Amino acid sequence: MFVAFGDKNPILLIGGFENLPESGENFFMSKIVIQNIAVSIDGYSAGLDQDINNPLGVNGTDLMAAFFETKTFRDQHGLEGGEAGVDNDFSLKSMSNKGAWILGRNMFGPIRGPWPNEDWKGWWGEEPPYHVPTFVLTHHAREPVEMKGGTTFYFVTDGIHSALEKAKAAAGDLDIRIGGGVSTIRQYLSARLVDEMHLVFRPIFMGRGEKLFDGLDLRELGYKVEKWVPGERAMHLLISRQD
Amino acid sequence: MFVAFGDKNPILLIGGFENLPESGENFFMSKIVIQNIAVSIDGYSAGLDQDINNPLGVNGTDLMAAFFETKTFRDQHGLEGGEAGVDNDFSLKSMSNKGAWILGRNMFGPIRGPWPNEDWKGWWGEEPPYHVPTFVLTHHAREPVEMKGGTTFYFVTDGIHSALEKAKAAAGDLDIRIGGGVSTIRQYLSARLVDEMHLVFRPIFMGRGEKLFDGLDLRELGYKVEKWVPGERAMHLLISRQD
Repeated sequence: MFVAFGDKNPILLIGGFENLPESGENFFMSKIVIQNIAVSIDGYSAGLDQDINNPLGVNGTDLMAAFFETKTFRDQHGLEGGEAGVDNDFSLKSMSNKGAWILGRNMFGPIRGPWPNEDWKGWWGEEPPYHVPTFVLTHHAREPVEMKGGTTFYFVTDGIHSALEKAKAAAGDLDIRIGGGVSTIRQYLSARLVDEMHLVFRPIFMGRGEKLFDGLDLRELGYKVEKWVPGERAMHLLISRQD
Repeated sequence: MFVAFGDKNPILLIGGFENLPESGENFFMSKIVIQNIAVSIDGYSAGLDQDINNPLGVNGTDLMAAFFETKTFRDQHGLEGGEAGVDNDFSLKSMSNKGAWILGRNMFGPIRGPWPNEDWKGWWGEEPPYHVPTFVLTHHAREPVEMKGGTTFYFVTDGIHSALEKAKAAAGDLDIRIGGGVSTIRQYLSARLVDEMHLVFRPIFMGRGEKLFDGLDLRELGYKVEKWVPGERAMHLLISRQD
């Protein structure tokens, strides 16, 4: 049976809940999830040459186009309009039931090496869309940064397992989302630490960029596609780890 | 406008024919096409370790599962039953309007190096599903082999351009299909010789095998996804080269 992603009220679309246990306590325990990660058909999840003007790398906006058109994205950024539908349902779902997030250093910002000062506070303005403790993997220590709306960025310098332990302590029985980027996702998949993954397959060629699957034998690691759902601008793949 | 694959009676499913010219003579000239090539979501189009028992390599049958269930496949192999539907429509279409095929040596058989004798005549029994002149790329010369039902295998030792010239001469105004395997397809894509491509995206992880896209910048080469159509067991992608 497929377990939906981090939501106690799974949308019917995802299905697979025929055998829900009567008592949901253990069933709905905290999960470690990846959600709403776009992949091109040639296997890229980010463009190259990220900088302040290209947070997703060159042509990265093409990858995320299914997300940008949704009402969920536009709401997050204080914009009006946006589409409802399958892509939007998945985007909305990807933001719910989260107790903590883990981000890689490059997802947090374009700065490399030691922090020159305390000025950079993420791509997202004063009120980031996380609203919970958010752990940023880095080799360079820094004091926590408290933002508006409940997001606090904590900087973790001792690796992915340590970040996960801290996130678990913060999340309680809510889910922990590995937010990206590509390198961070690949590290957690490779260590078999991800319970469920929702990928957004975009029907485009990127041609170059950061490859999501390169050198990862996801079959051997136990990951399996449980369901796929066509959306308006992408195909949504629901994947879980078999133990 | 998207041009459907090798068929003068394109099925409505594929669409995009609103602007068909009144006179179709030039429009329907011979095209070089790739069709019905399966790709896993991690980018593999064949398994590893092909041998006499694994024509598609290890786990390769998982890749081709959308094809095996179709009425078209079962008809080709003298079996009863099989499903109609979207996957079947694409399979049927992939066999129509062909004037010549080009196959790589490994798609023709498991033998490597010089031909030990004339015994091997392909995987497909006495009556292969091609029914037209079929050019096999090899480094080792061999006399043509005439099969039942109109298929003759010609062995071409002087490269992909030579094989294409021979196929064009044989095909007239019908289409030329590059049948595979992976290495052959990659060579023709890389040389920008393919006009249209239909890929069958299977929602599975292969984990290992032969990668279709590795090192190919299909965006730079001018290929673009024109349409995608969800089928019963796969997502069908229709791609054309922009000139």
